[in-house]
Amino acid sequence: MARKEQLKVAVIGGGSSYTPELVEGLIKRGAELPVKELYLVDVEAGREKLEIVGALARRMVEKAGADIRIHLTLDRKEAIRGADFVTTQLRVGQLEARGRDERIPLKYGCIGQETTGAGGFAKALRTIPVILGICREMEELAPEAFLLNFTNPAGIVTEAALKYSRVRTIGLCNLPIGLRMQIAEFYGVDASKVQLEMVGINHLNWTTKIVVDGSDVTASFLAKAAGAKGLTMKNISDLEWDGDFLRSLGALPCSYHRYYYMRDEMLAEQLEDLKTEGTRADVVKRVEAELFELYKDPDLAIKPPQLEQRGGAYYSEVAVNLMSSIYNDRKDIQTVNVRNGGLLPFLPDDASIEVNCVVDAEGAHPVQPSNLVGPEIRGLMQLVKAYEELTVEAAAHGDRDKALQALALHPLVGTADLARSILMDILEENKPYLPQFQS
Amino acid sequence: MARKEQLKVAVIGGGSSYTPELVEGLIKRGAELPVKELYLVDVEAGREKLEIVGALARRMVEKAGADIRIHLTLDRKEAIRGADFVTTQLRVGQLEARGRDERIPLKYGCIGQETTGAGGFAKALRTIPVILGICREMEELAPEAFLLNFTNPAGIVTEAALKYSRVRTIGLCNLPIGLRMQIAEFYGVDASKVQLEMVGINHLNWTTKIVVDGSDVTASFLAKAAGAKGLTMKNISDLEWDGDFLRSLGALPCSYHRYYYMRDEMLAEQLEDLKTEGTRADVVKRVEAELFELYKDPDLAIKPPQLEQRGGAYYSEVAVNLMSSIYNDRKDIQTVNVRNGGLLPFLPDDASIEVNCVVDAEGAHPVQPSNLVGPEIRGLMQLVKAYEELTVEAAAHGDRDKALQALALHPLVGTADLARSILMDILEENKPYLPQFQS
Amino acid sequence: MARKEQLKVAVIGGGSSYTPELVEGLIKRGAELPVKELYLVDVEAGREKLEIVGALARRMVEKAGADIRIHLTLDRKEAIRGADFVTTQLRVGQLEARGRDERIPLKYGCIGQETTGAGGFAKALRTIPVILGICREMEELAPEAFLLNFTNPAGIVTEAALKYSRVRTIGLCNLPIGLRMQIAEFYGVDASKVQLEMVGINHLNWTTKIVVDGSDVTASFLAKAAGAKGLTMKNISDLEWDGDFLRSLGALPCSYHRYYYMRDEMLAEQLEDLKTEGTRADVVKRVEAELFELYKDPDLAIKPPQLEQRGGAYYSEVAVNLMSSIYNDRKDIQTVNVRNGGLLPFLPDDASIEVNCVVDAEGAHPVQPSNLVGPEIRGLMQLVKAYEELTVEAAAHGDRDKALQALALHPLVGTADLARSILMDILEENKPYLPQFQS
Amino acid sequence: MARKEQLKVAVIGGGSSYTPELVEGLIKRGAELPVKELYLVDVEAGREKLEIVGALARRMVEKAGADIRIHLTLDRKEAIRGADFVTTQLRVGQLEARGRDERIPLKYGCIGQETTGAGGFAKALRTIPVILGICREMEELAPEAFLLNFTNPAGIVTEAALKYSRVRTIGLCNLPIGLRMQIAEFYGVDASKVQLEMVGINHLNWTTKIVVDGSDVTASFLAKAAGAKGLTMKNISDLEWDGDFLRSLGALPCSYHRYYYMRDEMLAEQLEDLKTEGTRADVVKRVEAELFELYKDPDLAIKPPQLEQRGGAYYSEVAVNLMSSIYNDRKDIQTVNVRNGGLLPFLPDDASIEVNCVVDAEGAHPVQPSNLVGPEIRGLMQLVKAYEELTVEAAAHGDRDKALQALALHPLVGTADLARSILMDILEENKPYLPQFQS
Repeated sequence: MARKEQLKVAVIGGGSSYTPELVEGLIKRGAELPVKELYLVDVEAGREKLEIVGALARRMVEKAGADIRIHLTLDRKEAIRGADFVTTQLRVGQLEARGRDERIPLKYGCIGQETTGAGGFAKALRTIPVILGICREMEELAPEAFLLNFTNPAGIVTEAALKYSRVRTIGLCNLPIGLRMQIAEFYGVDASKVQLEMVGINHLNWTTKIVVDGSDVTASFLAKAAGAKGLTMKNISDLEWDGDFLRSLGALPCSYHRYYYMRDEMLAEQLEDLKTEGTRADVVKRVEAELFELYKDPDLAIKPPQLEQRGGAYYSEVAVNLMSSIYNDRKDIQTVNVRNGGLLPFLPDDASIEVNCVVDAEGAHPVQPSNLVGPEIRGLMQLVKAYEELTVEAAAHGDRDKALQALALHPLVGTADLARSILMDILEENKPYLPQFQS
Repeated sequence: MARKEQLKVAVIGGGSSYTPELVEGLIKRGAELPVKELYLVDVEAGREKLEIVGALARRMVEKAGADIRIHLTLDRKEAIRGADFVTTQLRVGQLEARGRDERIPLKYGCIGQETTGAGGFAKALRTIPVILGICREMEELAPEAFLLNFTNPAGIVTEAALKYSRVRTIGLCNLPIGLRMQIAEFYGVDASKVQLEMVGINHLNWTTKIVVDGSDVTASFLAKAAGAKGLTMKNISDLEWDGDFLRSLGALPCSYHRYYYMRDEMLAEQLEDLKTEGTRADVVKRVEAELFELYKDPDLAIKPPQLEQRGGAYYSEVAVNLMSSIYNDRKDIQTVNVRNGGLLPFLPDDASIEVNCVVDAEGAHPVQPSNLVGPEIRGLMQLVKAYEELTVEAAAHGDRDKALQALALHPLVGTADLARSILMDILEENKPYLPQFQS
Repeated sequence: MARKEQLKVAVIGGGSSYTPELVEGLIKRGAELPVKELYLVDVEAGREKLEIVGALARRMVEKAGADIRIHLTLDRKEAIRGADFVTTQLRVGQLEARGRDERIPLKYGCIGQETTGAGGFAKALRTIPVILGICREMEELAPEAFLLNFTNPAGIVTEAALKYSRVRTIGLCNLPIGLRMQIAEFYGVDASKVQLEMVGINHLNWTTKIVVDGSDVTASFLAKAAGAKGLTMKNISDLEWDGDFLRSLGALPCSYHRYYYMRDEMLAEQLEDLKTEGTRADVVKRVEAELFELYKDPDLAIKPPQLEQRGGAYYSEVAVNLMSSIYNDRKDIQTVNVRNGGLLPFLPDDASIEVNCVVDAEGAHPVQPSNLVGPEIRGLMQLVKAYEELTVEAAAHGDRDKALQALALHPLVGTADLARSILMDILEENKPYLPQFQS
Repeated sequence: MARKEQLKVAVIGGGSSYTPELVEGLIKRGAELPVKELYLVDVEAGREKLEIVGALARRMVEKAGADIRIHLTLDRKEAIRGADFVTTQLRVGQLEARGRDERIPLKYGCIGQETTGAGGFAKALRTIPVILGICREMEELAPEAFLLNFTNPAGIVTEAALKYSRVRTIGLCNLPIGLRMQIAEFYGVDASKVQLEMVGINHLNWTTKIVVDGSDVTASFLAKAAGAKGLTMKNISDLEWDGDFLRSLGALPCSYHRYYYMRDEMLAEQLEDLKTEGTRADVVKRVEAELFELYKDPDLAIKPPQLEQRGGAYYSEVAVNLMSSIYNDRKDIQTVNVRNGGLLPFLPDDASIEVNCVVDAEGAHPVQPSNLVGPEIRGLMQLVKAYEELTVEAAAHGDRDKALQALALHPLVGTADLARSILMDILEENKPYLPQFQS
């Protein structure tokens, strides 16, 4: 990006409970990243939340004495026009929809999860048309802006934007930075001393090399990681890895791999939780209600510490790091989602992948992994990517055939019958959010 | 192969109940394929069967007035020395081992099948070292001979021979010809009027184009195939395909796909059968006992019609067709298993694939498919091929780590826990047949 | 193609002196290929030739008692409407243009040849827009027809049709069959006993395997080919290959390779010929004038033997063989130009390549070569293909930049200065035929 | 590399006139790169130079008060044992051999250049066996060390080391940094403000993106570069680029591209120079003689400014930058020669390529280029790389057939006759240095 004195950022889904984290990050890093205009956009259904969060954001800015103007709006185009960065953290259908995403698969004995499996599939169907709408507006109103997509399933949504728009899109996730932090803590060193080589796709990446303080500790870490606690995302059960399994894999799976490699235990736990506390959406609804109560407090002018319990740790870190490295042409390495372009030759060129990238003013440029991954990693990655390709097509074109094949292919569904039943429920229950399937 | 006046064929596992079918084929096609020496080889444990089958073979030849000398031997090298074709139809550990292959996975709630999933995996571990031993002998004693491998899992075994020997190996299966016959019957035309384009790997191929009498009937056939009976191998339950599923897939899955796309019903049926009639191995044992009783009859001098009930239909057709096309440099198209070499660019170059090939004196040369398959086909093929790669490595080197990852990756196992439990049982119960894992 | 009782063939450039050869072929093979309507089309400038050739064609048909109606027309659409096969043998700008193509490069010390180097480049610029016009009409008026393109540079023209139209296009050349005939003659066997494996692109293919009567004679043939006469096209000087060079190459270059590997001698010969007999176009003009004198003879009702001297030997054979194999779904092997689609993984997927193909009712399906070619073959093929890609783009879009880079890249031009000078001359001298460069 | 307190560096060819530059660099950057032991190794024929240069180096270190011990030795193993970095700047056969490399091709009317074309080919034949010998010793005596290869032809030599040894090898050239400096000077900015994206192979790379002070100036720079002076290496004639040519290419060719794109002018100039001042080797011999006279001066204790005239500008910068980034795990971007590994999918995986890399403690990791290059760049790169592959094989195995094909393929030779003549001369005149061809 060309050097500018001041930046405009538009946050789509600005009424999210995560917004105070982003605002805090922008305040802290104001010296290196001169964001002067921050637009928080939401839809009518999110107006109340937007107002609560926006008021808090204004109090935070004021208290910090930061030179950031906070704009609250339901007019997405106004927010996008001339923006330098557009971030998306939206949830089509709100938490109600998430609850359905989690519940439907469970009804058929399949994992019900917001981003992985049939739940993530349903979310992708709802979300991709909205993101492509944002892309259309960006092409017109902010053609040079970067789209930083946090919206889940981030890999699939990013792939859709890369395939169906000309917008410079980077997909973001807090999992990579989270793992780095966990490993830093594990070794008792500063995170800057930890380097990870990650290869894969969003929510299905493998850490193939772990360097701590200049030494490659991959093998010894894998031996220790089996049985270790704390190597997971906040929202994913901390089931222990088997030592033989990790050693034979030769890489550290990500938190979400538990849904595959530990499918049966994870399913059992989900079914148990459903009985006791409801879906994860139900839990989050309660957490959010509490958060918004806190946010309403006119005396609150900082990010409340309770927010960190929600699972989105480092979200602000990730977003602000990326914007700053682009703005400052920093050329540091971050793990983000970009177009494959042959880097992983066993995946399609136009697939989104999540790998280490050099970030400079032009965007994120993937760095070649040290070694090509073996079949134990490649096979699962290819299968899930094929599912993702089908999902992108299904969502972009309202194609029921692709949708059916996507679900039948997904390892957490895997049969024609289950695919059909789950698909029918998803299409039925999400009707208002799936205009592309109505013709 | 250079033109010769007379041919020598060695059949490893010559005591198989299928041998009379092969002998019948060689008698019938004697004019075009001058096999003069037929060596039936077996191991000590199969000596009795070998003698019964061998005596029947001699009576068949005599009755037909064919000029074929039948040799019975336990000396494999004698059989291989100077052979033009070596065919393998062996079963390491006999039907007892097959029974275990089918039973172990079922114990853990997984499909138990001779070639697919954990059962096929166990069979591969036992079989590959034996096949590689045969390859070593061929390299020394018959370096120009073709190895026609029928031994299951044929794709994996063929891949091992292609990767770990210089022997000219072609993997054979009766599924492709069987499907062609079924479709010919379906349309009431001669099989010569039916052409199929098959793409995939052994026991996991998709028929992507069906031409009957010069017209492409793929779409209309798929509409009819849903619900049609008779489109399956003898040994695979004739569950009906769903019409929406077939149409959205755009290709006809093979019989073995039922273990994937109809996993739950197939598993239920296997568990039910186990209770009533035992494993498929138990059933085959009974059929074989009856067959060998028939074979003993000194008045029997033809292939008894009961043999066709066993499931190996067209086995002789496939073998003799291939030998004849090579011998006669015929350049016709047959669907066999060969090295990929980039034909399917989304699979490794050194993978075995099952596709249409031109067969000439030099062997089988794959023909490029009309269209690249889509993700709905590619994804599953890549996953299962990755499992196969790991299995070949595990079997060739006695590598437990690869073995564990192979099972964890297979969609009919799919979790680390199941993989470990099943692997432990397999290694324990097959100890005498797995010397490569004993160090 | 669907089975029909009678066929319509349109020949674009029907006034060519070659047409009697095609007519002879259609008469001879009438039993297997029921062509009932033969349209000979030409442009106004070729009307006289069309009438002469057409009259001869009618006498030939009548004398043979063949059931073929000959139509002469300047209305291309009428000819194409409902055709089953459209063949192109046109020459934009007639022999005058060819003369310029041969002369301009020579002026700058570069090889001047109708299909190779800067001469072929100029011909491509003139021809591609016309061929794409024919494709447009076929898409509308005969969407199921096959386009059999003989028009040179056949590889480049075919690539343009494959890239810029949906027409089922196959590029044809008489070089492969010619070589087969020459080798058959060399060994004193029937051509049916000779099989060649050819790998490459049009007018730049390598014969990597030569099988005569079932034996692979490649190495011994290469030893004999050095110094042998008669292994060349009629229009290419029969310079001898060096034995060391052929052995180290491990394959037989095609006739046109002499322009590369023997560039200096070929250039010297061209310059010498230019002084004595003029360009090849001048020679052909004289030959053609004689031929048309013969054709005018109302008593002539067969193809005159003098035609075979012209260089287009087997042209009819190639065309009729291909039509017949498609019509009869024959599945034999022919060496033609088709879309690469990954068969040669070191060339772009959408490049045209010239390789062995199985020909059936659906068209030509490439067969995987026995071995991947080495760098000595691959390098030159990649360079010339890159030149061809640029030429297709330059011709299709009137892009001067691509045109300049195409010439600068071609090994028979190779410098920026020569490229610019030659390009300026070509654009200037071909102005009436290059509307795409006029904007 | 694991963090160490002090480093050992071995310089093979330590008697080179460039050594003072390297010593100066090590002195200046001592704070960030603690080289304590510097071994200068040479062969018997270079003993005198080694002693002169070594004495100067010691005076330089002493004067600067640097803590570096300079060792002079003819015992290569002693130097390599336990080294952290081994750099090679050797010249097998000294300048006499270079003179022959430049003269032989000119005799046949071909470009005679030390690294490009037949001259570079001859140098590769002599050099690769020596480099592979060094690699053998490193595998034994310093298995963790990095080999920094400056020896020309650096791309080919690096490829040989990558293919035929397990040594961690990085190929270096001063061209990339030189261009950056020239562009910085052109714009009047500091070099740190200039970023270049380079894609290609050594001495044949294209600068596809030029960013100055955060702005992409590629197109405008190309317009200005045509006709600009100063954009070339010291040893390459500063012929002007044509504006149309650069614009249509869309990238800046490197200095050495002049041998291709301006072949005829460069050849004319070489032939003229040959008459007046002899070969470049003759010129360098005179320059070196003067330099060594200076070096002998016992009062000289700095790098004499005359060294910069020689053409190896920034050589020390490049070497010390790379060592320092590895030692300090700096993760900055440098343009070096590494294994392709699929980064440029149109070149073989095991080819060496010259691209932007992230340099960290593990070595150099290539960054994916922003865009895939077009055919105008790809075609020439593929051809020259195919020549390089053949040259590596010829040199490593003493394979005359590959050698012949390599030369026949090279665009600056290009015919079978020239290839044979030049090869015979090269093999004859370099006999003492080509033991691999003597069997």
